[in-house]
Amino acid sequence: MMESDDLLCGRLYRAVTMLEDCGEFAALVPEVRSNFVYARENPQSREDVLAVDGRITVVDGMPKAAGRLKFGASSHMARLMVEVHKRDGRYRAGVDFANNPELADWLERYCQEKGWVFSVMDRSTEPDDVKAEEGASMPWKVGKAFEAAGGKTPKMFYETGAVGKEPVTVLIGGDPVEVAEEMRELAVKWAER
Amino acid sequence: MMESDDLLCGRLYRAVTMLEDCGEFAALVPEVRSNFVYARENPQSREDVLAVDGRITVVDGMPKAAGRLKFGASSHMARLMVEVHKRDGRYRAGVDFANNPELADWLERYCQEKGWVFSVMDRSTEPDDVKAEEGASMPWKVGKAFEAAGGKTPKMFYETGAVGKEPVTVLIGGDPVEVAEEMRELAVKWAER
Amino acid sequence: MMESDDLLCGRLYRAVTMLEDCGEFAALVPEVRSNFVYARENPQSREDVLAVDGRITVVDGMPKAAGRLKFGASSHMARLMVEVHKRDGRYRAGVDFANNPELADWLERYCQEKGWVFSVMDRSTEPDDVKAEEGASMPWKVGKAFEAAGGKTPKMFYETGAVGKEPVTVLIGGDPVEVAEEMRELAVKWAER
Amino acid sequence: MMESDDLLCGRLYRAVTMLEDCGEFAALVPEVRSNFVYARENPQSREDVLAVDGRITVVDGMPKAAGRLKFGASSHMARLMVEVHKRDGRYRAGVDFANNPELADWLERYCQEKGWVFSVMDRSTEPDDVKAEEGASMPWKVGKAFEAAGGKTPKMFYETGAVGKEPVTVLIGGDPVEVAEEMRELAVKWAER
Repeated sequence: MMESDDLLCGRLYRAVTMLEDCGEFAALVPEVRSNFVYARENPQSREDVLAVDGRITVVDGMPKAAGRLKFGASSHMARLMVEVHKRDGRYRAGVDFANNPELADWLERYCQEKGWVFSVMDRSTEPDDVKAEEGASMPWKVGKAFEAAGGKTPKMFYETGAVGKEPVTVLIGGDPVEVAEEMRELAVKWAER
Repeated sequence: MMESDDLLCGRLYRAVTMLEDCGEFAALVPEVRSNFVYARENPQSREDVLAVDGRITVVDGMPKAAGRLKFGASSHMARLMVEVHKRDGRYRAGVDFANNPELADWLERYCQEKGWVFSVMDRSTEPDDVKAEEGASMPWKVGKAFEAAGGKTPKMFYETGAVGKEPVTVLIGGDPVEVAEEMRELAVKWAER
Repeated sequence: MMESDDLLCGRLYRAVTMLEDCGEFAALVPEVRSNFVYARENPQSREDVLAVDGRITVVDGMPKAAGRLKFGASSHMARLMVEVHKRDGRYRAGVDFANNPELADWLERYCQEKGWVFSVMDRSTEPDDVKAEEGASMPWKVGKAFEAAGGKTPKMFYETGAVGKEPVTVLIGGDPVEVAEEMRELAVKWAER
Repeated sequence: MMESDDLLCGRLYRAVTMLEDCGEFAALVPEVRSNFVYARENPQSREDVLAVDGRITVVDGMPKAAGRLKFGASSHMARLMVEVHKRDGRYRAGVDFANNPELADWLERYCQEKGWVFSVMDRSTEPDDVKAEEGASMPWKVGKAFEAAGGKTPKMFYETGAVGKEPVTVLIGGDPVEVAEEMRELAVKWAER
């Protein structure tokens, strides 16, 4: 049976709802707001990636999806997911969240405890021709994240060093509900630190 | 494969979205607002029926789901769906909408054109012991709707004659997306009449 | 200084927010949902009455305004407010909520304790020519509510006995924030009964 | 008469609604989302500044306020407004929106045409002790914006050159409805360029 878009939608709906009900996640929503994405099998472009229209913001101290789930609703996270999937076909779901020096240190230790591959990419090393070419940055960045992880697929990674860009951390997995569970556990641990 | 709650949710999400995008349906949202329900296989109670929390209201002239999809979010429509399913296991989805004398006449002709079984139940004939017993009205009403349809399963029906109760029309089917398509077509035809 | 629409809007915004934050009010939202209205000075028609577009529904167990505050967004409650204001110019704000036999008895006692004038109008006595004439029911009903209160302005009233109409109770006052405070206190007392 | 919080709220509500209804503004909502703020007279801290909880995001291609208007709901824009007000007491309302090299050039010309004072502050010149001290950046930045404008109050300004920070443009004025009108006109002109 071919997996249907409806099943994807129901699965991401459950995952987003789990984050909306997690007050601790509110502290990890970045200035640019979070998105949560789930790609069809073999995604070719952002149009194959389901995401939250308007992203996940914080209202009354709780995470809140601003709009509907739609294919094509995300640009950044959707293109990232497509690039990750090219390198490791098991990964189809992801969420982005905050990053700052204190959090980054804590996340690195958290990943060690969980046995997760963690990676960082330094955008200050991004070549000018990559920056200049439309659409070239994302493949370069995701490539760097895998490279910095010694060729393994990073479970979590972030980029750093870009002028005018807020750094965000990305957590990826095969299924959005699993990723939501991992994100909730992390958010609770961060709140309790 | 057992049908999952996630698939139900994705399917109803699509159906509700279709109605939200149908401006003509706004004119058919009743005072009590509409709900759209989808039951699990062999539903036993309202907890087995997915529905829109807060119902579907009208905002800026367009139908709008007030809250999330949740199992147990509906009382009236969910219990109706459970009763219908007991009599005809093919029916698991339904939406309610407005009723008034002009609309009722039009709907009866519309059902004839579509070849749909149409039924009416007159609540002024409801026995006092049925009214008095908690939870007895819905089985009686749904039984009447089937009875008035000569034992066939009505595709559409409404009740009439109750003091203090707004009459609503119910459209049912096997799948919420099919029901949403039927509802949209009906709403457009009613707007064009 | 002429009172501005902006001041009206800010005042009703505060009042609606107070009800949204009152979980006990959720139990008093009727099937037709509540609205909260605030009329300009000397309102002539519903277009002079500010109200919640899409009414106040219940989501996640809490009252929630479905849409924006807009002049003209209400029909029933706005026309009621215009009629009340014709008879007593001090009254410009009102909210409607549930009614049923148990609640009605309790409300009558509650009004006695508060020293509020309470009134009931029986729509089964509505003359046929009033029913037949477009727009004639509301003046007749409001007139009956004042008449049944011995010519005094009722602080609270409800109608009863109409086929196909859910009975609702109406609480009115001069200012929406005052009415919201009164409604909150009543809802808390009803929850504690 | 002391100006009331309700009047502030009604005025900002109207202003935010105007932007929500302006599709062209959606193209100017930055990654960090926009906020719209309105300060009480003589604001001392962010708690004296009304703002949109959850900011203004983009849903279905239209700007949308994510949550309610609340005092204290904004950090960045509220503190900016307090600092601006210290230097020029006429200014109490402001909205932030996108910035990028193409837009920045266009905005500079737009301000010239309108006769508006325009200013830029380069954060790469921010001293380390300012960066290090909690709460010192905003006074420094706003001071720089006035300084770069030759001591005049800039009607519009943006900052540039910060690592990890998306640059945003700020438009300020005395009244939020006036600012909303100016923002709408600008957004329409940018869409037509």
